[in-house]
Amino acid sequence: MSTASLLVRDVLLEYGAIAQTALKGHLDVAARHDSVYGLAADYPLRGGRALRASFCIAAARVYGASISDAVESAVSLELLHNAFLVRDDVEDESEERRGRPALHVLHGVPTAVNVGDALTVLGLRPLIRNRAILGPDLAWRILQEAEQMVRISVEGQALELRWRFENAVDLTDEDYLRMTLKKTCWYTAIYPSRVGALIATRDSDRLDRFVRFGFFLGAAFQIQDDLLNLVGDHSSYGKELDGDLREGKRTLMLIHLLRSSTDGERARLQDMLAQRRCDKTSADVQWVHDRMVHYGAIEHGRRVAHALAGAASHEFRVAYGDAPESRDKRFIEALPYWVLERK
Amino acid sequence: MSTASLLVRDVLLEYGAIAQTALKGHLDVAARHDSVYGLAADYPLRGGRALRASFCIAAARVYGASISDAVESAVSLELLHNAFLVRDDVEDESEERRGRPALHVLHGVPTAVNVGDALTVLGLRPLIRNRAILGPDLAWRILQEAEQMVRISVEGQALELRWRFENAVDLTDEDYLRMTLKKTCWYTAIYPSRVGALIATRDSDRLDRFVRFGFFLGAAFQIQDDLLNLVGDHSSYGKELDGDLREGKRTLMLIHLLRSSTDGERARLQDMLAQRRCDKTSADVQWVHDRMVHYGAIEHGRRVAHALAGAASHEFRVAYGDAPESRDKRFIEALPYWVLERK
Repeated sequence: MSTASLLVRDVLLEYGAIAQTALKGHLDVAARHDSVYGLAADYPLRGGRALRASFCIAAARVYGASISDAVESAVSLELLHNAFLVRDDVEDESEERRGRPALHVLHGVPTAVNVGDALTVLGLRPLIRNRAILGPDLAWRILQEAEQMVRISVEGQALELRWRFENAVDLTDEDYLRMTLKKTCWYTAIYPSRVGALIATRDSDRLDRFVRFGFFLGAAFQIQDDLLNLVGDHSSYGKELDGDLREGKRTLMLIHLLRSSTDGERARLQDMLAQRRCDKTSADVQWVHDRMVHYGAIEHGRRVAHALAGAASHEFRVAYGDAPESRDKRFIEALPYWVLERK
Repeated sequence: MSTASLLVRDVLLEYGAIAQTALKGHLDVAARHDSVYGLAADYPLRGGRALRASFCIAAARVYGASISDAVESAVSLELLHNAFLVRDDVEDESEERRGRPALHVLHGVPTAVNVGDALTVLGLRPLIRNRAILGPDLAWRILQEAEQMVRISVEGQALELRWRFENAVDLTDEDYLRMTLKKTCWYTAIYPSRVGALIATRDSDRLDRFVRFGFFLGAAFQIQDDLLNLVGDHSSYGKELDGDLREGKRTLMLIHLLRSSTDGERARLQDMLAQRRCDKTSADVQWVHDRMVHYGAIEHGRRVAHALAGAASHEFRVAYGDAPESRDKRFIEALPYWVLERK
């Protein structure tokens, strides 16, 4: 592991633990064990690394804020992230999450959808608590950022769902990147930077400088995530391998394959993508996987992820160039390297 | 129709039109027709009567606020109500809403769940706009009321879903009323009163006086709604009749039937309730309906709805006794009568 990745690992352990402690306080698991909040606590307590919360805390500290200034916003983001995961798993018919059956597999779709709502409203509470910690003006601006972030994420999800609903097979890499900007990058990388800087500087006017850095970083992260679904190690990945192929998810690699295939192969792919998840055979999935290898789709994904991570490193200097040197700054600078190295 | 119901009808037409106009502005349908917001606009534009928005506006005017003071909060409530409807239809596998196929029937469950998220985040925006209209302090307090309201609604939905998931057959009328307080009454009747009064008086301390009135009114409303599903007219009701029986919804009437049945009947009912909606035959549904008539379950529902509406009328004097006479006050006073007379 590179020095950069080791730093990321250490900071994630440190800030992740802080975020998890605060998160547990919000979830109030013990007191409400027998209610919807017990189920809402399931995914968060499966032990994600709290990447987004840690990023938010680091971005705030880079510009001089304290951990306690940022922790409510960080916890809110982690709760909303878990709400997205619960809904995504329902919408994608995913079977596993963080090494265990998905929530809707355990408790049915209706309850899972309701737990998503519970997590969303739990995600609003820390933003209301911000008022007492940061004052009403700043708390309002963070709330506006959160509203924008959720809205953009919903728009990204709508794009991806429409592609699947319409069984789209003529997508370009640009389509994919536009969708990923909305669905993944904004809440994973752009929002933590914006809110961290906002908390520390109280300056709303210069937040757009984080968009390009966050876009490149978030897109590299997402493509790497999709690559791990194809070639990763099941025990550390926590989701079923090739699950994206079963779900018909329009990854950069699938889009490359659709573009590279013969007409006959594309027709077979299109038929297969139209099938329900449970109707796809393992032989079909293996065939798609083999065709991806054959046409260099996985190699293409790796190349694009590397190019995006490189662009993120370049943009880091634009976005964070004015910040004083610090461990937190080095952590954010290291994220593009870690993204490519993580398993 | 009684004088009371005529007044309710007139005010709903008037305030409903104001709310619908503001709602359309928020939905911005024309500009975003091709996106998730087009789908988010579907249910709202099917032309509900905007009961909750009108109630909120009237409650604010009772205590001296203007329509423009209340309209953003009213629109927010209507958007959140529509978010609940979209999710409820998914969770209950309902087939129709407001006389047309349910959203998930038209566009699939994944998109419907995402449209629910879009409506939720759209419901947050007017509460943010409140800041410019009402000032930051009051806008915060309304936001806190909204957070509480959504949370309580989710808890109520969780109760109802658990009953269905566990195929509960030993419920009491008290269980039903406790669930309905959370799932229906709070957002339908308690919240509009609380927020209306808050907007006009800026006094958070005396809002609990609306809880009992809103509970009685909301519960009468819900039971009447469930009765209309059993004995109503399809064209004006807008949902498939007996749909609640197909969904296994634990209405007051079903709970009465379960309590009154012989052991053999209860076993047959329990088996039927465990089936998926699509596996229930029309003959089964007709049998349950007949048993309800036989055991006086529908009559029991009518009696309880009347008793609750009577209690609401009594509590009206406690909740709204200090308000000066006005058309808005008479409208709210008339709601318990209208609830029983509506078709």
